[in-house]
Order: sequence, then structure tokens, then C-alpha cells
Amino acid sequence: TASDSTNNSDVALVIPLFGVESKNKCLDGWFSSYNGGGMNGTSKMMDFLEEPLPGVGTYEDFNTIDWVREKSRDRDRHREITSRSKESTWALIHSVSDAFSGWLLMLLIGLLAGSLAGLIDISAHWMTDLKEGVCLAGFWFNHEHCCWKSNITFTDRDKCPEWKSWSQLMIGHGEGAFAYILNYFMYVIWALLFSLLAVLLVKGFAPYACGSGIPEIKTILSGFIIRGYLGKWTLIIKTITLVLAVSSGLSLGKEGPLVHVACCCGNILCHLFTKYRKNEAKRREVLSAAAAAGVSVAFGAPIGGVLFSLEEVSYYFPLKTLWRSFFAALVAAFTLRSINPFGNSRLVLFYVEFHMPWHLLELIPFILLGIFGGLWGAFFIRSNIAWCRRRKTTKLGKYPVLEVFVVTAITAILAFPNEYTRMSTSELISELFNDCGILDSSKLCEYVNDFNSTKGDDLPDRAAGQGVYTAMWQLALALIMKVFITIFTFGMKVPSGLFIPSMLAFYHHDWVIFSGWCSQGADCITPGLYAMVGAAACLGGVTRMTVSLVVIMFELTGGLEYIVPLMAAAMTSKWVADAIGREGIYDAHIRLNGYPFLEAKEEFSHKTLAMDVMRPRRNDPPLTVITQDSMTVEDVEAIINETTYSGYPVVVSRESQRLVGFVLRRDLIISIENARKKQDGIVSTSIIYFTDHSPPLPPSSPSMLKLRSILDLSPFTVTDQTPMEIVVDIFRKLGLRQCLVTHNGKLLGIITKKDVLKHIAQLANQDPDSILFN
Amino acid sequence: TASDSTNNSDVALVIPLFGVESKNKCLDGWFSSYNGGGMNGTSKMMDFLEEPLPGVGTYEDFNTIDWVREKSRDRDRHREITSRSKESTWALIHSVSDAFSGWLLMLLIGLLAGSLAGLIDISAHWMTDLKEGVCLAGFWFNHEHCCWKSNITFTDRDKCPEWKSWSQLMIGHGEGAFAYILNYFMYVIWALLFSLLAVLLVKGFAPYACGSGIPEIKTILSGFIIRGYLGKWTLIIKTITLVLAVSSGLSLGKEGPLVHVACCCGNILCHLFTKYRKNEAKRREVLSAAAAAGVSVAFGAPIGGVLFSLEEVSYYFPLKTLWRSFFAALVAAFTLRSINPFGNSRLVLFYVEFHMPWHLLELIPFILLGIFGGLWGAFFIRSNIAWCRRRKTTKLGKYPVLEVFVVTAITAILAFPNEYTRMSTSELISELFNDCGILDSSKLCEYVNDFNSTKGDDLPDRAAGQGVYTAMWQLALALIMKVFITIFTFGMKVPSGLFIPSMLAFYHHDWVIFSGWCSQGADCITPGLYAMVGAAACLGGVTRMTVSLVVIMFELTGGLEYIVPLMAAAMTSKWVADAIGREGIYDAHIRLNGYPFLEAKEEFSHKTLAMDVMRPRRNDPPLTVITQDSMTVEDVEAIINETTYSGYPVVVSRESQRLVGFVLRRDLIISIENARKKQDGIVSTSIIYFTDHSPPLPPSSPSMLKLRSILDLSPFTVTDQTPMEIVVDIFRKLGLRQCLVTHNGKLLGIITKKDVLKHIAQLANQDPDSILFN
Repeated sequence: TASDSTNNSDVALVIPLFGVESKNKCLDGWFSSYNGGGMNGTSKMMDFLEEPLPGVGTYEDFNTIDWVREKSRDRDRHREITSRSKESTWALIHSVSDAFSGWLLMLLIGLLAGSLAGLIDISAHWMTDLKEGVCLAGFWFNHEHCCWKSNITFTDRDKCPEWKSWSQLMIGHGEGAFAYILNYFMYVIWALLFSLLAVLLVKGFAPYACGSGIPEIKTILSGFIIRGYLGKWTLIIKTITLVLAVSSGLSLGKEGPLVHVACCCGNILCHLFTKYRKNEAKRREVLSAAAAAGVSVAFGAPIGGVLFSLEEVSYYFPLKTLWRSFFAALVAAFTLRSINPFGNSRLVLFYVEFHMPWHLLELIPFILLGIFGGLWGAFFIRSNIAWCRRRKTTKLGKYPVLEVFVVTAITAILAFPNEYTRMSTSELISELFNDCGILDSSKLCEYVNDFNSTKGDDLPDRAAGQGVYTAMWQLALALIMKVFITIFTFGMKVPSGLFIPSMLAFYHHDWVIFSGWCSQGADCITPGLYAMVGAAACLGGVTRMTVSLVVIMFELTGGLEYIVPLMAAAMTSKWVADAIGREGIYDAHIRLNGYPFLEAKEEFSHKTLAMDVMRPRRNDPPLTVITQDSMTVEDVEAIINETTYSGYPVVVSRESQRLVGFVLRRDLIISIENARKKQDGIVSTSIIYFTDHSPPLPPSSPSMLKLRSILDLSPFTVTDQTPMEIVVDIFRKLGLRQCLVTHNGKLLGIITKKDVLKHIAQLANQDPDSILFN
Repeated sequence: TASDSTNNSDVALVIPLFGVESKNKCLDGWFSSYNGGGMNGTSKMMDFLEEPLPGVGTYEDFNTIDWVREKSRDRDRHREITSRSKESTWALIHSVSDAFSGWLLMLLIGLLAGSLAGLIDISAHWMTDLKEGVCLAGFWFNHEHCCWKSNITFTDRDKCPEWKSWSQLMIGHGEGAFAYILNYFMYVIWALLFSLLAVLLVKGFAPYACGSGIPEIKTILSGFIIRGYLGKWTLIIKTITLVLAVSSGLSLGKEGPLVHVACCCGNILCHLFTKYRKNEAKRREVLSAAAAAGVSVAFGAPIGGVLFSLEEVSYYFPLKTLWRSFFAALVAAFTLRSINPFGNSRLVLFYVEFHMPWHLLELIPFILLGIFGGLWGAFFIRSNIAWCRRRKTTKLGKYPVLEVFVVTAITAILAFPNEYTRMSTSELISELFNDCGILDSSKLCEYVNDFNSTKGDDLPDRAAGQGVYTAMWQLALALIMKVFITIFTFGMKVPSGLFIPSMLAFYHHDWVIFSGWCSQGADCITPGLYAMVGAAACLGGVTRMTVSLVVIMFELTGGLEYIVPLMAAAMTSKWVADAIGREGIYDAHIRLNGYPFLEAKEEFSHKTLAMDVMRPRRNDPPLTVITQDSMTVEDVEAIINETTYSGYPVVVSRESQRLVGFVLRRDLIISIENARKKQDGIVSTSIIYFTDHSPPLPPSSPSMLKLRSILDLSPFTVTDQTPMEIVVDIFRKLGLRQCLVTHNGKLLGIITKKDVLKHIAQLANQDPDSILFN
């Protein structure tokens, strides 16, 4: 199935150069068991113990990684390669290639993500047009390409002979009520076909391919393990269904899913390099960079992509990753540009370049737009979360296919009559962002010309005529429809993004201001700028992005001129939305799904102590501990069977409660099992030693089991008086999984990441049991 | 004097609203001593102890702050304000204004930094021109403004009648050898005058105003305290001397000093808000943002400025700071733009916009430029550090004025004959970056036209003629001179920046390629692009900046087209330079000066344990500890006098060595002194209690001194087996000052930041005693 594909090694075309670690360490185990057990075999046994057993140091699904341990392991590996590099030329080459493998990986991710984005753009464009008609010159041409072939002038391209609408194809003409109904019918049928295919593919092959993916990616980057979420099946199905979902006309964008697709690429390509395949922390660095590449291709904004990754999704983002992310984002952007899916040598469909200056007084409407954006964002998050919660808790969630069918049908039926909702979302934005010049031939401007009979061609001082009002009316309708449909769409079981729908939301508002202003004189205002600022405000309200949002919009427009309006709107929008509800849409979805995500942005502001959070609580039985040199295999196995904790502290003795180290349940089980199988003389009464040197045993007693190698000798400890704010800080910054609590040198309790999250949820008056995973 | 100006409160126009903490806590102390001492006064005494004594929690000069403590204190303050805000409207307003004070501060910093940058630009421009002549229409006009007044065409502006060179003014004409010598003489005299004035001002009023300031700012941001380094005297003197130093024609730029100036603004403006004045950690957040504003005005690159602050100077950079930095950078950039110092409504003098595409094959010369840039960077750092070390160790350092005199004299004498070194550095760059079009009238293009008689006006397919070779020859000379002079200049006792000189270095190289390529046909290459890429490569080699460098250059050119060449060059340059020497110029200077800076970028890769680093070492006397309930005032005072440690661990008893907490020397001294003065019955035999509850004492014994309030109950501990790489990580990420080492629950030793730095220096085969401060 798809859910374990990340872990399968059939993707792993391991370059032999990097295969330094042999797969079967069990052989070494057998060798040492041959003369192990007695005191004379100690040195050999130590060697055996220093070799990791297979499985030791890996994680189970839906668990949190220990960043400190992963980073230590990578440093050990790096140290080994460096020290070996002095020995031979071959090892030196290995060392150099190891150092550059990160860059190679970034290059590959950039190329793959860029190509996939190009593919998605071209297919989605073609399939969107397929809903309206087909090209006679070749069915694989989309509307625009079809009409390019016919060699007629650009303004007439909508009426080119090769492009036939469905009514023209079936009944021979495109006029009249029947043709309209036929086109309408075909439009709805295609939309339903696409969306049903998408939902069935997702349901059948890759359940993780649904939704935007960004909440899950944030969680994964923070150290959680969801096997298969970034696997090859998810990648394939997500790519296909994304095209289908976008083409079906559902109110969703391709930006979030593109980030997911890029992260899948990153994860799969990680398998090529041992360095990244075997280390969860290193792999997450790559995923951060891949997320940047995803945003880079979605918006054609490499710098914005890096900042998005830094600000929104990443958890651990060292400077090295910053630089590599930038490289990956650039490669991806230029790959996409060389594929040139829009035929305009731009990275995105809606690249615009305004040159009109803006007035200082215009800051007032910009700030108003920001306030509206913030309100819309807060409203959207609330409604969407309420709807998703209903979907989770009621019977609705059991019929995802039906839900998609109904939503698609409603969307398509409502969308067709309105010209602005019928076209694809990115086309619409591209038209809205456009500034109508005299030579401009975009649809919106034409539209105005067609309908407005009172207006001449002297555009600079045109008044707002009938056409503008018609456009406004249609846009207002489109806005209202989009708002409601999007609430229901985001979170459905199809790939869905949020960026573009959000961007749309506030366009109609601009026209009101535009018409009011323009009547005062020739000093017209750029309506496209208002559309852009409105889009930024809405997006800011929904996602709470700040710098990255401004930079993305700035890269879209290609000029520093409008950075102040954008910033003013984004800032106001964030403030307003934050005043209503603290969380952005992604954080809200993370919380809805109960992922163990420790938010790095919000300050922990309560005055509780480590004491209040640690387990055992005041009236609980004491902490389950293992002693360093007095427990037998049987005792330890009993503890393992009786409890479900994922690790146990090791102490000097039960009386002193002085902490020695920490041992993980998984490692303990694997080691004991392995020793029972492979080591002679290990029976239930064998004593387990975690000490460095073990006392000589009487010859009659069963041989001992030395497990110091699996003991973490440097567990993190805090005192019981430590304020929780510092504990939360330590968990965040060091990426801990657990932390032991001491008082005057004695072990008192333990705090896990789950405890911290539960505590935070409790203080926020939420249900602490909503934190599902550890 | 200037050195304690940051601490003086005469700058502090404290807004009454924020003055919640009264200045004289001693009064409370007096009150409680009135009935303190006996058991009946305990509750009062507890109150007294909970009030911080003045001085407790502050730091001495040249010490490192404890980030964890500072952040805790800020959270406490925030919590208090939030809880109070529910009580009254006034407190609510206070709470809101407190939340917005950060933004207000950013606005003020942006305005001040932008204004100062504008002032510096205008003054430096005027004074640079003063070296060559004076304007008759008004001596306060610079050459360009003077000739604007005269209303003649732009191409003739060099010969406008109002502008008189010194020879024209003195002997009435500008032709002939005598006039040349006179001009030469005046040029050198002015240069010497400016530079001597600068060095004397620095020496007399603000010794901290010298140099670029970036190494010190990096150190301060990492948590070190250098009082007065960012004070008002430093600001005033640095602003004045920066203008003088740039005008004198020394080979230095104004960019680094502008960052220093902006940070001074930030620090001084912090005094307006209690929140920032009283908290060293919060203040450093502001300084990070101020550094971004400084780069923003230096290059007209707000996004680049933020990334520079993030990548190069900042240590603790939460996302909140990212957003605020961006705001401050934008405000600063737009303030500068409205001042418009260059009269072209651009932010920088050398704003350029190319439109020529580049060819993929050109990546080869770009990468070559990168290699040269890297080599130059490594060479520059080595030579400069060697020269600075010589200055520090030999007698040379004792005569800074003489040194400046000699270097200025040599610079001025060598600079005047060569047209490219005579003009100011930014003017030169502006000309070099310019693309010569047909209508272009920049000097370099004119120059070509003047000297090259074989060439017509049909520029697109002009061959490289005599003029180009002359220009190349002059530029090569300029390059060589600049290279050598800069090595000696950077680090002198005048404000000096490095950016611009570095940018210059590789220009001449481009012309060789340019001429070779152009002869093949009309498909000419943009020489300005090569200049830019070369500049980026050199700057990258010297400073090892990466993303921020590319973004700054991209913002300078205003187009995404050239981001790939820039990136290729910057990346190659960094790799090449890193292969030769690991450190950038700023880090090298930090090490040269022995500042306690814990580099966050470099991985600690040695396999040592906490045991190997902690004090006491194996054969040392045991760790000095204080027991929690058995030592008298006398005993503690003896320990304080005998040792110089800045803090002592408190243990349960000497026998058990179980850790209770950590107490700072400074706090201990202040508290004991205060208690002896203000509290009745405290004598040398009084027992100091660090426990929560103290046993009832016999009435005859002297009253006890309770000091639990100054005890840090949550000291950071690690086990002796913790790898140093993890310890280094903890120090970096949490900003610790010290960390205690335990073994099986018993206190074993202590590791301070200085120990860590010494250990790193030792492992890098450096002199561990070069770390001067703690």
C-alpha cells in the first residue's frame, strides 16, 4: 500500500559509494556471541555493543523524533568520514562527494519540482479548456495554443475557427438557448467527471494525497513521523489528482499541493543518499528546502519561497539550509521557466508590471482592505474549522465521494453563468491584476468596451460606465460565491490549496473605490494594484504570513514601488485577524487533527512550574524506573509489559533515585530479544547492567547482559522549580522528546512533548485529549 | 566620558506611562528592616525579598548576559501587565501601548536611520567635491547641484561656469602644469585635513567610533555587554567622522559604519521605552532590526537588509523580529528616498537597470569571477588580519594619528593622477555598473568617445578601441592600488566600511572579456553586469555572505534576470574562500579582538565530553560550593574574597553534593551588603539560608539571612558524559552563561561560556588565552 512507501527501499538506487554501512549487522552479533558471556570476552563484547543493532535508533510511525540524537548521529557519521579521508584518496573523494551531495540533492529537487510544476500547469490549462470545447487542429492543444496555430490577430483569438465549443461540435453552432444549455451541461459533466476521478484516485491509492498538505508538512518538519505521507504513491496520485481537481473548477488552488508535491520529491530523492536516507533530522533540512522550491514554482518567487519556508513551515532552519533552500528554489523556478508553461517566458500566469505611482492618501483604502482581509481571514478560519469539525464528527465524513460530487455540482452549476467564475482561477486573477491600458486587450478591458456604449476609446479619463457596473456586479456575485464554496471545499478529500481562492476574495471592493475616485479627474488609480493589495490582505488574514507574503507579492509584480501598500495591508490584516483568533488556517488544522506540533511563534505566558506538568502527578504511583545494576531480564520485561511508556529512566538505586541515564523502550525490547536469541547464557534471571564496569560474578550465576551502549548517558534534566516557559523553550529549541525532572539531585518525574502540548491545551481551555499522538 | 553614555539616564525621556517601577527600592528595604529579623516579621520580609534590589539582575561591563534569565524577566513583566489590564481601563491602555511600543520604536529607528543616512550622503558628496573645487553660486552646493543651477545642458555640466576648481579660483585658470599641481596639492591637503580631523575626533571623544563596527555589533548581539559602544557620543562622532573619512578619499565605504550608526540609533531610542531599556534581551531584538535598517539605507535594499541581519549579524532572531526588522528597514529606506540625497529618486547612487539577457555560456566567466573573488577574499582577510595583528603587537598601534596621516597622504597622492581613483568610490561604482547606451552620458562612455578617434557613434558594434584600453589600464592601476590600500585602511582608527571597496575590486577583469567577446560580432555583453558579478564575488569572498548578498545585489539592479549569475559567482566565491580559510572578515576580527562570540554557523565536530571541559580539572582543588543552610555570612564572604568566579553552585550539603541552585556573585555581594546595612541583627555569624523554610532558631543566636530570592532554582545541568557538541548546541541555542555538570545526580563541575570558547580555540590549535572576556 501507499502508506509505507517512504520506507521501502525499492526506490533507493543507493550509489555504491555511499553504502558504507553494511545491511546485516546481525553477523557481527553472531560472531561476538561465540565467545561472549564470560569475562574474557568483554573487549569483543564491547565491540559488539558499539555496533548498532538494526532497528535501534529508528522510530515507529506516528512518533516524534529526537532531534538531539539525530543530529549527534549525523555528526558522528561526518566525523568518521572526515577522519577516514586522511587515510586514502578514495576516502577523500568519498568525503568530498559527501559534502557536495547536499547540493546535488538540491539540484535534483529543483529540477524535479520545476518539471512537475510545468507538467501540472500545462495539463490543468488544457483540461480546464476541455470543459468548454475542443481544438480541431489537435485535441491536445488548449484554447490559446489552438488559436495561435490559426495565425489570426490576437484580439480575435476568442473566435478562431479551429476552436470549437461543445455546442458547435455537436449541433453545429454556438448561438441560442439550446447551445448555451448544451455547453452548460457539458461544463458540469466534465467538472463532475474530473472531481470524481480525483476523489476516487485519492481514496483508492493514496489517502494522504488529499487536502493542502501544509499542516501535515509543518508537523513532519517539526519532527513527527507519518510514514508514506511523502512517499512515491502520494506524489504520483497527488500530481494527477491536483490537475483533475484544479480542472474541475472547484474553488481551490494548486499552491499548497505544489508544496506537498515538492516535499514528496525531496523525500524520495533523499533515498539516493545514505546521509539523508538514514537521518531524520538531515532529511527534514532537505524537506524545508523542498518546501521553498514548491512555493518558488507556485508563485515564481524564489526569495518568497525561502522566506515562506523559514517563516511558515520550517521548524529547524539553520543558515546552511537557508542557502541551500535558495539554491533549490532558484533551480526550480528556472526549470519551470525553461518549460515555459504559459508561453510568455514568465514564471507565473499572472505576472504583472505596473508603473503607475501610488499616492500617500491611498494608504487609507489599503489599510481598509487590510482590515477587511483580516476580518475575512478570521471568518474563513472559523467557518472552515467548524465545517471540518462537523465533517469529522458526524456521518458526513463517511461519504467523501458524495460530498465531492455535491460540492462540484453546485460549484459548476453556479459557476457557468458568471463569466468570472467560469474561467479558471488563475486566469481570472491574471485579468484582475492587469491594468487596462489603451493597447491592452485583456478580457476585462474588452468587456468594458463591449458593453459600455457611452464611452469612447480615450481611456485615461473614461468615466465609470455601464460596463464597469456590470463587471462589478458580476465580480461581487463571484466573490460571494467563492467565499462560501471555498469554506466547504478546503478540507475535502481532494488535493486543495488555499492561496489562489484567498487571493480572489477582495477584488470587487476595489472597483467601488476606483469608480468613485476616477470621476474626480484624469488621475486614475490602478485597479490591478487594489486587486493585488486586496489579495495580499485576504491571504494574510487566512495564513498569517507576513514577510514572505509581501516578498511573494513583490516578486509577482517585479517592482519595489508597491511594497509599502502591500506591507500596510498585510500588517493590518494580520493584526485584525490576530485580534479575533490567534491561529492561522494551518495551525487551526493542525490542532483540529491533533498533531503534536509545538508552535514556535507563540509565547508560553503562564506561570506554571515543571513540577505541575511532570508525571507522576501528586497522587499517582511513583515513576517507573530501572536500576543500573540490580534488575534481571525478567524484571525489566515485566516493566515493559506492564507499562506503555516509550522510555524509562535508569537510576543508581531505588533508594537514592540518583539519575544515571535514559533508555528507550524500543531499544530495550530489541536488545533483549536480540541477546536472548544470539547471546549464550542470557536467561530470565540474568542481571542487566547499565554500568561501565560490572563486578565479577560467581561462576554459577547466569551470564549478565550489558546494555550500556543503548543507554542515553546525557538525558536532559530540569529542576522541578523550572518555570514551564523555560521548559517549553528548551523543547522547542533543542527538539526534545522528553526531559527528566529532578529536585536537589534526585529524580522526581518526567515531562514528554505530549505532556507539554497537553498542558498548553489545558491552559488554553481546550480538551487536553485532543493531542492524539506522541 | 563617552564610554558610559548608554547607561546614563539623561537621554531617557521616560514616558510617564511606562514608569511603573519606582527608582528607589531602598525605601522598601528600610521599611522592612524596621520589623525584620525576627520570626514575626517573616511575611513582611518575604515581601522585601521578592522586590528586586537595585543592581540585582544587572550586568557588569564586558560580561555576557544570560538570555534565559532576561527572557524570563520580560515574560514576567508581560504577564504582570496582561493580568493588570483586566483591572482598569488605564491599565488596558497601558497594555495596548506596551504591545505597540515595539512598532513605534521601529518606526522611530527607521526615520532616524534614514535621516542620518541622507545627511551623511549629502555631506559626504559635498565634501568630496570640495577637494576639487568650490561653487561660486554658494559654497554649500556640490559640483552637481552647482551646475544644475546654471541651467545648461547635461553633457556640458563638467564645464559649467559656477564651479571653480581650486586652480581656477587661485590663479584664474585651470590649464597647464602649475594649475594641475595646485589642484593636486589642494586635493591632498583637503584629504589630510579631513582624515586628521576624523582621527582626532575619534581619539578625543568616542574611541568606539572607529572601524566598521560590525564585529562588535555581532558580539553585542550575541549577548556581550560593551557599555557606550552604542551610546550617543559614539553616534554623534561616528556620523561626523564617517563623513570626514569618506570625503578624505580613504579606501573605505560607509556601509558597515551605517549599520553601526543605525544600531546606535536603536540603542538610544530604546531608552524611551522601559520594556526595552531594562531588558538586555529585548534590546538586542531591537538592535537586530536596527542593523537591518542600516543595511537597508546603505544599499537601498530593505529585504537584503533583513536577510543580512538574519544571516550575518544576529544571534537570536525570532520571527517577530523578522517582521519588525522588515518594517524598520522599509521605513528607513523610504525616509532616505524622500530625502533624496542623489536627486534621482532612487535609494542608492548606483541604482542600475539592465535589460540585456545573458547567455548560458557566460556562466563560465561568472564562475571564474567567483573563483577570483574567493581568492581575493581569502587573501584580503589574511593580509588584513596579519597587518592588524602587527598593529596590535608592535609600536605601530601607539601612533594612530600618524598612521592615518601617512595612509591618507599615500592614498591621496596616488589617487589624484588616476581619474578612477580621484572620484569618490560610490561615483566610480555607479559609472562602472552603468551600461553604455547610445544616449548614455556617463563619464566612462564619454571617456571612450573622447579618446577613441577611430570609433564612430554607431555604438552597438563598436570595437574595443584605444579609449577602452586606456580605461582598462587606468582601472587595472586603480584596482591594484585599491587592493593594497584597503588592506591597510580597514582596521584603522577611523570609521571604515568594507563593502564598497570590496565591490570595486574586480572590475578591470570584465573589460578583458568584454573586448574579446565583442570583436566576434554585434552581440555585445553588458560590461556593467560583469562589474556587478565581480563585485558580488569579491564581497562574498570577504564577508562570506550568501543569500543576503544575492538579494542585496538583486535589489540594486531591480530585476530577477541576473539572479542566477550573481548566485553562481557568490556560491563559487564562498566555496573557494572557505577552502582557504574558514572565517569571514568579521569573524576573523572578532577572534583577533578576543571577543567571546560563539559562532552559530560552524559545527562543533570534536568528540570530547563535558567532563573534559568542565572545571575543576582532574588535579584541581574541588569546586567552590555554598551549602544551602549551614554557612555563615563570614564563610560566604571569605569565599567571595578568595575566588573570582562570577557565580557559585548551592548544594544540599558538602557530603552529598546534591545541587539546589546557582547564585551569582554580584547578586550575593549586593544582597549581603544591603542586609548588613538595612537589616537588624545581621552579623558575620548569621547563617545564610537558601531553603524555602528555615528551622526555628534558638533566641540567642544571631538572626538569619534568607537569600532564596536571589537563588536561581533552575540552573541548567548536563551529565559529565554529555558530548561537547550537545553542550555547545545548548549554549548557542539557549544563550547560556554557565552550565553545571553532574554525575549520577551529584554535582561535579561547571562549564562557562568562556570555557567552551577556550576549548574550541584549543581544539583549533589556537591560543586559548586569546579569549579575553567572559
